[in-house]
Amino acid sequence: MLTVNALAAPSATEPLVRTTVERRDLGPRDVLIEISYAGICHSDIHTVRGDWGKVPYPLTVGHEIVGHVTEVGSEVTKHAVGARVGVGCMVNSCRECENCQAGYEQYCLKGNTGTYAGRDRDGTVTQGGYSTHIVVDEDFVLRVPDAIPHEAAAPLLCAGITTYSPLAHWKAGPGKRVAVVGMGGLGHMAVKFAVAMGAEVTVLSQTLGKKDDGLAFGAKDYYATSDPATFETLLNTFDLIINTVSAPLDMNAYLRLLRLNGTLVNVGAPPEPLPVQVFTLFGARRSFAGSSIGGIAETQEMLDFCAEHGIASEVEVIGADAVNEAYERVLKSDVRYRFVIDVDSLR
Amino acid sequence: MLTVNALAAPSATEPLVRTTVERRDLGPRDVLIEISYAGICHSDIHTVRGDWGKVPYPLTVGHEIVGHVTEVGSEVTKHAVGARVGVGCMVNSCRECENCQAGYEQYCLKGNTGTYAGRDRDGTVTQGGYSTHIVVDEDFVLRVPDAIPHEAAAPLLCAGITTYSPLAHWKAGPGKRVAVVGMGGLGHMAVKFAVAMGAEVTVLSQTLGKKDDGLAFGAKDYYATSDPATFETLLNTFDLIINTVSAPLDMNAYLRLLRLNGTLVNVGAPPEPLPVQVFTLFGARRSFAGSSIGGIAETQEMLDFCAEHGIASEVEVIGADAVNEAYERVLKSDVRYRFVIDVDSLR
Repeated sequence: MLTVNALAAPSATEPLVRTTVERRDLGPRDVLIEISYAGICHSDIHTVRGDWGKVPYPLTVGHEIVGHVTEVGSEVTKHAVGARVGVGCMVNSCRECENCQAGYEQYCLKGNTGTYAGRDRDGTVTQGGYSTHIVVDEDFVLRVPDAIPHEAAAPLLCAGITTYSPLAHWKAGPGKRVAVVGMGGLGHMAVKFAVAMGAEVTVLSQTLGKKDDGLAFGAKDYYATSDPATFETLLNTFDLIINTVSAPLDMNAYLRLLRLNGTLVNVGAPPEPLPVQVFTLFGARRSFAGSSIGGIAETQEMLDFCAEHGIASEVEVIGADAVNEAYERVLKSDVRYRFVIDVDSLR
Repeated sequence: MLTVNALAAPSATEPLVRTTVERRDLGPRDVLIEISYAGICHSDIHTVRGDWGKVPYPLTVGHEIVGHVTEVGSEVTKHAVGARVGVGCMVNSCRECENCQAGYEQYCLKGNTGTYAGRDRDGTVTQGGYSTHIVVDEDFVLRVPDAIPHEAAAPLLCAGITTYSPLAHWKAGPGKRVAVVGMGGLGHMAVKFAVAMGAEVTVLSQTLGKKDDGLAFGAKDYYATSDPATFETLLNTFDLIINTVSAPLDMNAYLRLLRLNGTLVNVGAPPEPLPVQVFTLFGARRSFAGSSIGGIAETQEMLDFCAEHGIASEVEVIGADAVNEAYERVLKSDVRYRFVIDVDSLR
């Protein structure tokens, strides 16, 4: 057992504190990773604060992890000591169900093992990446291409794959009009990916505050959703809408922006049910869908796509002691576009 | 102007009565049809009773129409006097928008002209098929193959195409598991179509009352939705669910029955918004969609498919004076499976 430095939430209501967590001894197929950077995802905050249900405390979160391999188990073949690697939102799955077999470990029928607050195969609770080291099965470790700056690679492991996967699945590309709702950690990645895939991209953000950034990332148009005219102007316009907002929006207003056969995909996860008018779906054979991260092979594909297209996350690097303040800023959408913890500050 | 016998609703609360309606003089591209049979669709009842909003009275409904051509305009090329023809839910559209141009007149961006309670191109209110004759633009008139019994063809023009279209669009076929929710006028057609397309079909009905029929139509399984165990047994099972029920069901319970990448398509039209849990969509990249009738070309394809596969609607033929009683029976789901008015009784 390895005891390593970490940040943890003692309870749903207390700030994160410096502490230690235990990492299991390396199994034959395990990889020990010395973590360099860990992104701060909105899900981390939802989880530690109990917004999505009860979780065990103390809890270390963080599922946007990059680092280097420092030790490998006896049977490891996929990663070598010294390799640049990443870990995302899951560290295991059943590997036997039809979804796992098809490469969709994120939709494992027995439930994948979350990188934190999950139940590991040895029965212990998984602890995430706000920590100096982590031990992960090699099959759930990704190769991070050298072309991607290390700190800017961390958010790709969640914010990146969460937006890449639906864009790829619903075939964003030349001739497709894609809207991205929300210009935060996920939204800015969705814009970059959809542009790189060749789609015509529009951003729908609450205000025009980040318009210059959006256009610089390659969006063609940028509209404020606080302006009711937006919803008139853009009626029947988009083939695909990626909604990255976790707050409950008026889905029918957004669904009406879809043209014939269009799909609105929620990657944000409001806990409240969203009322959907069937007549709105009827109007243009519209679909309302949900998508959750991506499979391991697809996550690797996304990282390789980023290297090829010069894509990375926009990040603000902070030290470990700035995390609680960063959480408050995330809740106020005051970050461009992702906080990343420099894990050296935990050593 | 032609004055013809019809049934009409004098108001939202009175029974239908015998009366007359006016049909326009034949334009160069119009067809005069002597109606043989008119199906009774649940939408007829919703419309005359004002459930879907205000409508003009007196109103003649009916959009499942079959008959024979008795006269054609000077420029008509598609239909000849004597031909067996049908008319469905729309009698016109703008023909210029991208949806019309692509053959999706049902999704006309200016709104198609409904067969009844619509605004015709001459500004008058359209009157439907519970009537001895109707005048329709030839482009919105379908050929009814001789292989389909005339009275059993009428419901194909709405119940048929409404279920055929989503099954075709979402590719029901060999290797696909399809569930049909509701075993009424639409549901029994969905079962027949999905079976003919080669899918493995399950019926989800409130009770097992129509199980023998469902299996006779080719369904492999038949479950009662009144039994909570059904929703456990069938978790993660279907590629496609066609929901024909107009009452607001618990969509999340049905969505969970979809396997990876599955779609639940509502063809029933509850006026209430349906609450959808995003986490349910997330679980298996599920979609919730809506579909509305079909385009003219697709409706013809559906009729030809019926002739080829020996498919027709199961009907109970009634006289015009039994319509009000039939409405009450439809509301109680007491019909196997569609009432059809023998329009000879109106002459």
